[in-house]
Amino acid sequence: MATNLAVREKTARMQLKTPKGTRDWTGPDIGMRDRIFASATEVFRRHAAVALDTPVFELKEILAGKYGEDARLIYDLQDQGGELCSLRYDLTVPFARWLAMNKIQQVKRYSIGKVYRRDQPAISRGRLREFYQCDVDFAGTFDPMVPDAEIISVIVEVFEMLGLADDITIKVNHRQILDGIFTVVGVPNNKIRAISSAVDKLDKSPWAEVKKEMEEKGLDSAVADDIGRYVQINGRGISSVLDQLRCDSRLTANKDFKAGLEDMDLLRAYLEAFQLSDKVSFDLSLARGLDYYTALIFEATTKFPDLHTKSNDPPIGSVAAGGRYDNLSGMFGNSIPCVGVSFGIDRIFTILKARGENGKAQSVARRFDVYVMAFGSGLLTERMALARELWAAGISAEYSLKVKPKLPQQFKSAEVGGARAVLIIGEEELKSGKVRLKILGLADDDPEKDGRLVARQNVVPEVKKLLQ
Amino acid sequence: MATNLAVREKTARMQLKTPKGTRDWTGPDIGMRDRIFASATEVFRRHAAVALDTPVFELKEILAGKYGEDARLIYDLQDQGGELCSLRYDLTVPFARWLAMNKIQQVKRYSIGKVYRRDQPAISRGRLREFYQCDVDFAGTFDPMVPDAEIISVIVEVFEMLGLADDITIKVNHRQILDGIFTVVGVPNNKIRAISSAVDKLDKSPWAEVKKEMEEKGLDSAVADDIGRYVQINGRGISSVLDQLRCDSRLTANKDFKAGLEDMDLLRAYLEAFQLSDKVSFDLSLARGLDYYTALIFEATTKFPDLHTKSNDPPIGSVAAGGRYDNLSGMFGNSIPCVGVSFGIDRIFTILKARGENGKAQSVARRFDVYVMAFGSGLLTERMALARELWAAGISAEYSLKVKPKLPQQFKSAEVGGARAVLIIGEEELKSGKVRLKILGLADDDPEKDGRLVARQNVVPEVKKLLQ
Repeated sequence: MATNLAVREKTARMQLKTPKGTRDWTGPDIGMRDRIFASATEVFRRHAAVALDTPVFELKEILAGKYGEDARLIYDLQDQGGELCSLRYDLTVPFARWLAMNKIQQVKRYSIGKVYRRDQPAISRGRLREFYQCDVDFAGTFDPMVPDAEIISVIVEVFEMLGLADDITIKVNHRQILDGIFTVVGVPNNKIRAISSAVDKLDKSPWAEVKKEMEEKGLDSAVADDIGRYVQINGRGISSVLDQLRCDSRLTANKDFKAGLEDMDLLRAYLEAFQLSDKVSFDLSLARGLDYYTALIFEATTKFPDLHTKSNDPPIGSVAAGGRYDNLSGMFGNSIPCVGVSFGIDRIFTILKARGENGKAQSVARRFDVYVMAFGSGLLTERMALARELWAAGISAEYSLKVKPKLPQQFKSAEVGGARAVLIIGEEELKSGKVRLKILGLADDDPEKDGRLVARQNVVPEVKKLLQ
Repeated sequence: MATNLAVREKTARMQLKTPKGTRDWTGPDIGMRDRIFASATEVFRRHAAVALDTPVFELKEILAGKYGEDARLIYDLQDQGGELCSLRYDLTVPFARWLAMNKIQQVKRYSIGKVYRRDQPAISRGRLREFYQCDVDFAGTFDPMVPDAEIISVIVEVFEMLGLADDITIKVNHRQILDGIFTVVGVPNNKIRAISSAVDKLDKSPWAEVKKEMEEKGLDSAVADDIGRYVQINGRGISSVLDQLRCDSRLTANKDFKAGLEDMDLLRAYLEAFQLSDKVSFDLSLARGLDYYTALIFEATTKFPDLHTKSNDPPIGSVAAGGRYDNLSGMFGNSIPCVGVSFGIDRIFTILKARGENGKAQSVARRFDVYVMAFGSGLLTERMALARELWAAGISAEYSLKVKPKLPQQFKSAEVGGARAVLIIGEEELKSGKVRLKILGLADDDPEKDGRLVARQNVVPEVKKLLQ
């Protein structure tokens, strides 16, 4: 390297950046991100879920055919000999692969990890090409809608822990209800997924645009208008929309539609038991883009106008989304019904940050508790010996990495790092077996303002007592 | 997807596996891995380091020319339009890129993340293509060897927390000492890195093989033998080897060699202050493969014969390694001296597992604290309402996801999940506002063996009291 001048020159000239749509995490941001992870993990464990961490890339054929129109967003690894691989697009398909590979019949599992999509990034709104997902899924054959209702509770609990529960609404809908409507109004069977995908854009685009997409996909204008009337139905809770749909005899004659209604009636009862009825909104315009959902679908949304006042961007949208996918693991030869939710960590992070939670995180960013310093000749090895004792006792400590640091510099470093106390070694005091312990931030008239001498061999217990 | 029969059939026939050299993490394994992460993180924070998380891939040109012969092991992303990217090979080059990009002059930072190398995997010995690294680096201009000595202390402290401190030795050496020797014996300047890379193989290969590689790289047999004599020098602590090298006037006449000796003498003094002299071994055969080291290099090694008795594999080797690299960030136009260490998480994991620590982890694998169950008609919504109260109080709880589960099945689930207590809802008791709280695992003659009735509205405080 040292000899490769060409590389050196090229490197020195290049633009220093992370790849498009990616970012570094550090400082208070990483503290807040870890707080989101910790909140989610605590809720998942409360619901008896176990952790799973899969590789960042999978065999290309594992991902093939699972994502419909979105497959073009998958990152492939270059063919360098050996297997062909792609970066994971979500945590769900790797989970289904793991279930089948290990022939697992029943599990509650959670995963937190980065996923990759070659999408148009919008970093200020938390949309990146490399971003975190945080998923919990319940796999197994149970009674209808019982695990589904528990997942809704998990969503609310995570936002409760983050102090955001009052700001979210969970839109719910059912694929069989949507498919029933499409069939009844006359959408050909082979166009149902494409039309569903158009409906899904209603939260971002006006009806006229969505209708245009439907017509481009070969739908009659009259049929599209018929869909348009149905997908405008929505209401807080589940009961009111349920009552309205039950009265539509044209729809209830459809088998899929009827099965969907029965599921939604169970969900209504279970959410009442959880006292969560007012957190959901039954919304027929919710369709979800992914192909693999089979029954209940849901999306937690929140409106934070402060995040898009400067532009014409739509609101931040979904902060958690998921649904039931009963056939995905069956594609890998091990058919297990699943329901799960994925939290959009980067979007939740963006919201918390916009709310000024970052300020809070910053104020508690203490790098160490104790700073070890010395007068006069530097006493480096004495500072080292003392720091090593503190570290061995689990106390965070730092000292100047200079042989003879100046006194004001040392006090400055202690302050900048957020030290709660300093230990000052002086040659005279050391000869009599003592060092000075000084608490920082005391009032000028505090009797301990100038610190006090403690026996060298008692430093660790004295500091521990102080920090408690 | 549901309509794409070809994809379905292809998926059903494919071999279900993770890509070569990768693995899934779950169960007790993930618990032990997280314990390693938590131990390392605690030590890093104790030394006042801050976290940094960089993207999994970097611009290809960021990695170019930084890894010498190992560059062939880098995974590239396919060119799908836009920037050319590669998966990160380590956490060090991304750190140097971050330093330069943000014009940072001084920082202690740590990173834990997956890195990628297209090497020949040996999973049983913890060598994978996707593996975790766990790095801490001190960047900044300080007095010689002061940060270097602190990094050595960090290494020992991490293994102390993991209960492995007695099993490791930290080999130390110095690039300027090695380069001085190479120059003095007559290695041409442009062959020094290549010969150094051959020396680095001495821990895995016999001298005859290493010598052969040197000859193939164009070195005279006599010069190689001269090197062979020097690189066999090693000894516990630093003093004895230091004394031996000081007497060699042929070597001490070389400027590089002399500078290296001065550094090692400082390290000797600082490790004495830390009382860590007996943890290190000055070993002239340590060369480290990477190009970018400029001064002190080190490698924590451990011998676990139980891990390779069945084969002719060499011992597990390095569990942590690093050194000083003062020119790397300068390649990105921001020259800052750095010293750091990288822990081999997967290898440490393999050692802990082989030692049977897995058993310990398994015995504490409790999925939930409380199981909510019911007699007779199932009482699903009552179980749900009770569980929701427990969850809201932060208590981990589960119940059967069936409408009418059988009683023995419910007790079985409580036991398998590791519940400490069950809450039993019966219709009669519920009418009088009570549920039964039963502690599991009590002796047959315990007066509370059959549990006791508690008021429905007091369940949460009663359970909390019990779990404390």
